[in-house]
Amino acid sequence: MIPGPVEFDSEVLAQMASPAMSHMDPVFQNIFGETIEMTREVFGTKTGQPLIIAASGTAGWDTVAANLTQPGEHAIVVSTGLFSDRFAECLEAYGAKVTTIKAKLGHRPSLTDIEAALTAGTPARLITITHTDTSAGVLWDVPAITALVRRVSPSTLVVVDGVCSVGCEELKVDEWDVDVVHTASQKALGAPPGLAVMIFSQRALDVFKARTTPVLGYYFSLKKWLPIMTSYEARKAQYFATPAVQLVTSLHTSLSQILAQTLPARLAAHRAASDRVKDALERMGLRLVPVSRDVAAHGMTAAWLPQNVELPDFLPRVSKRGVVLAGGLHPEAPTRYFRVGHMNVSVIKDAELGHIGTTLKAIEESLEDAGHVFPAGYKKV
Amino acid sequence: MIPGPVEFDSEVLAQMASPAMSHMDPVFQNIFGETIEMTREVFGTKTGQPLIIAASGTAGWDTVAANLTQPGEHAIVVSTGLFSDRFAECLEAYGAKVTTIKAKLGHRPSLTDIEAALTAGTPARLITITHTDTSAGVLWDVPAITALVRRVSPSTLVVVDGVCSVGCEELKVDEWDVDVVHTASQKALGAPPGLAVMIFSQRALDVFKARTTPVLGYYFSLKKWLPIMTSYEARKAQYFATPAVQLVTSLHTSLSQILAQTLPARLAAHRAASDRVKDALERMGLRLVPVSRDVAAHGMTAAWLPQNVELPDFLPRVSKRGVVLAGGLHPEAPTRYFRVGHMNVSVIKDAELGHIGTTLKAIEESLEDAGHVFPAGYKKV
Repeated sequence: MIPGPVEFDSEVLAQMASPAMSHMDPVFQNIFGETIEMTREVFGTKTGQPLIIAASGTAGWDTVAANLTQPGEHAIVVSTGLFSDRFAECLEAYGAKVTTIKAKLGHRPSLTDIEAALTAGTPARLITITHTDTSAGVLWDVPAITALVRRVSPSTLVVVDGVCSVGCEELKVDEWDVDVVHTASQKALGAPPGLAVMIFSQRALDVFKARTTPVLGYYFSLKKWLPIMTSYEARKAQYFATPAVQLVTSLHTSLSQILAQTLPARLAAHRAASDRVKDALERMGLRLVPVSRDVAAHGMTAAWLPQNVELPDFLPRVSKRGVVLAGGLHPEAPTRYFRVGHMNVSVIKDAELGHIGTTLKAIEESLEDAGHVFPAGYKKV
Repeated sequence: MIPGPVEFDSEVLAQMASPAMSHMDPVFQNIFGETIEMTREVFGTKTGQPLIIAASGTAGWDTVAANLTQPGEHAIVVSTGLFSDRFAECLEAYGAKVTTIKAKLGHRPSLTDIEAALTAGTPARLITITHTDTSAGVLWDVPAITALVRRVSPSTLVVVDGVCSVGCEELKVDEWDVDVVHTASQKALGAPPGLAVMIFSQRALDVFKARTTPVLGYYFSLKKWLPIMTSYEARKAQYFATPAVQLVTSLHTSLSQILAQTLPARLAAHRAASDRVKDALERMGLRLVPVSRDVAAHGMTAAWLPQNVELPDFLPRVSKRGVVLAGGLHPEAPTRYFRVGHMNVSVIKDAELGHIGTTLKAIEESLEDAGHVFPAGYKKV
């Protein structure tokens, strides 16, 4: 129950063991073509360009930085935690000049600060926000950012790191006018790790095409990938790098399931599971890391440990009860809070699997063993 | 029977469907740690640093270029086909000045030409050779290159693209004094596609550490990966990017099998299978693309089609017989030859699977249907 890799559906997992198939095979052309089409649907776009590349989710940052920034260009990173900060580090590695707007752990930076950064000096090439920063469990209001950017700096691209959000948070790339969203296969998209999955808007592609300097690097170059994606979508194999055939096949099954569940039903289930976990932890006397429910993610929960409970004591107690949770991951207080993932089958098939009830029970018992005093009148889960 | 992805062993494939596991889990720490150790053994090194990164094999070029060259430095690419040329393109994308030494399709460039390039001007930062260029089936004599380089340009790093060789051709990184070898999971290492697998010598790491300019890019930065690899090898998880847990687990099984077979036995089996395929094709009256057996790879065979047989007619005839082969992939004559892969279980378990006999029969029948006249006295396979 960590915030990714998540638990997988058995059919998705079975596809991982599908026999060797040439990446040029007509059967795979069709699988990859459909996967590209379904990606567009899950991200809420009709005109965006999907990219599915063999790599960890981290590589989404490289793909953005390598293709959309030129050395010396200005980028703004709105930071809500470790992953936002790493995106800034990645942009700098490609030569961008980065302004980071930080908030304290659990908070979002204010729109006023963001507006000030957007209107100071030459317009930024891009601004990044982390939809859910997995280190803090803080959720961003994406349309509030796009509206602000279009009003005060219309040429700035809005890039959303959706690693812990796509597939469990509302996302409407076209309607919200987002330029890039990138995620990884192993979070709420419900497939094993190893694929970076992205959408680039036509506006982002125009910025790419207008570059006056060459793309830095090779493997993440859109110049290489755009013809490959277009070609597979037209059910014609074309070669740049061998696709991770089994992972793509597995993602195909997962995306099919997501669309069959319907996205609204899937998101509602994640909201309900999130409320259930957060309500239960608050009843136990714990305080959430995000300062309010408004800014809290629905695919994971970060909660402060009680003063008298230590992380290296708490996590093994939970683990002994068969549940794996994650520790903190924010430089401000990594050992003072823990993180619970609630995504994919652990939410969708909760009635059958019972992951959430088991997790809450394990947390409750571990807190009790560790000497936590529950609020008066506390009723066990 | 294409030159990768190859057919996989059923146990290797079964590991692809292993259940969700945290990349921080002690069980995975051990799996990843052992995989790193076995990689060293398969590459023939005790002191080299393994890197196993979620990406296609193509990313090996980026990892070399990003970490070992600085903008403006000189690199020499010894080209035996399309993949060598692409390595040159990748090095240039990172700012290296590349000299390419080309040979005609089927030939190796001469050591005299290579020596001339190595001794002209300032010493090259690195020289690359493609152990087996998958586009041509031409094999390089690696120790001949390292001996030459150490004699005339000792500070130049020797980089071997081993994508179609590691696991089926002799490779002794330490004994031959090679600096980098990179490959992909889906060729003779026998696992599904999605992992770039590399070895960097201590000399290569020293060049990396002596850089005076920052690494270009983020995802392929050795600065990020070296602590991760060292840490997992010490059975302590550390995070930079989520590893492709299932692919690593599958590679672990495949490397275990390779070492259990013993490397000498595995290489002998590949040499024997290669001879069998090449002998049979020559008996059919076909000419091999490599100009002599000395320069021909053992994991694949490239053969010219007879004058009167066309590739778009031939390949579907083979395919109708249940065997998938690959067309040519060399810019000089892409439609005039075909390629057969013979790696991994198709070689090791040939007695049980019969892949090679089936393939030769399919080629023979397809040639016959296409109107090929076999040499006088030809005996059917």
